[in-house]
Amino acid sequence: MSATTTPVDNGVDVAFLLGAREALTAEPAGAQFKWRVTNTWVHGTHSQTTVDGFFGLGDEQDTARAFKFDADHPELFSAENKGATPVEIVLVGLASCITGGLAAVAQNREIQLRSVSATVEGDMDVRGILGIDSDVRNGFGNIKVTYKIDADASPEDIEALVAQSQKRSAVYDLITNPTNVTVEVA
Amino acid sequence: MSATTTPVDNGVDVAFLLGAREALTAEPAGAQFKWRVTNTWVHGTHSQTTVDGFFGLGDEQDTARAFKFDADHPELFSAENKGATPVEIVLVGLASCITGGLAAVAQNREIQLRSVSATVEGDMDVRGILGIDSDVRNGFGNIKVTYKIDADASPEDIEALVAQSQKRSAVYDLITNPTNVTVEVA
Repeated sequence: MSATTTPVDNGVDVAFLLGAREALTAEPAGAQFKWRVTNTWVHGTHSQTTVDGFFGLGDEQDTARAFKFDADHPELFSAENKGATPVEIVLVGLASCITGGLAAVAQNREIQLRSVSATVEGDMDVRGILGIDSDVRNGFGNIKVTYKIDADASPEDIEALVAQSQKRSAVYDLITNPTNVTVEVA
Repeated sequence: MSATTTPVDNGVDVAFLLGAREALTAEPAGAQFKWRVTNTWVHGTHSQTTVDGFFGLGDEQDTARAFKFDADHPELFSAENKGATPVEIVLVGLASCITGGLAAVAQNREIQLRSVSATVEGDMDVRGILGIDSDVRNGFGNIKVTYKIDADASPEDIEALVAQSQKRSAVYDLITNPTNVTVEVA
């Protein structure tokens, strides 16, 4: 190795993650997290959602956070377009989950990333949400994620990076597998 | 009915939606939509996603939109907290989908909404994403959505409103039922 070799740095603290893995193997109770959001209707299909603290490691965490999101329907649906549509917001979650994971896996495998971008496309037959045909589902038919990655690695190693991030992705899991959702009025 | 009765107005153009239902019943090809987002890695687990146009009614639509989202992991994970976590972003999509639908269903049923808020909680055992235990899933265990609604309607009618919005929600469907996701490197 030459003296000018730069250490791989994708900005992910892998030592921390490996330590967390060890700690939570010993204390599984700390691994029980609860993520929360609070949503408020504004007008029409426009609502605002706030993301702040969450529960993890046995306690409330990061309570100083306050990320705000507007959601709405587009003008094509005769709505006011004050934010992205809810289904687009889910695609944002999917893309950002796999991309964040990619950086972590690349760091762990000592692969320097130079650039990563992805397009996500979700097909939807809107006859479902409009109640036209009960055989048409409300959600997406298929979702396709396409990555373009420039990294210090072979095409095979880049494919393996993406596969590993997909395998560990919380959002990929929750979209591809069923999750129980309870909706109640307080 | 007294002369001072105010017409119900939740800000949703129900006449348009009923017209769309009729039009797309006659022309199902127009109901094939494609929603898209574009994601770019920034640093570490931080990425940015843009939501702009989409395909529907046989053509590109609303291409002047440009909603931006930052996603990251929180400081607890030794990350830079530049945005909400991807799993929280999915909860944003769920809450905003059911709330937007509520306003539409209420308008169709001539129920005036005064205020609507919801909290969404998703339980996650992070031993899944950390690769500690392959029997633990990566995604949420359970998700609970709790609405508080002040509306010009009986408790039973409010319960029915929420049930109907849940039934027609694209995001509720995609979380509770499996969806095929393909991830590729271009």
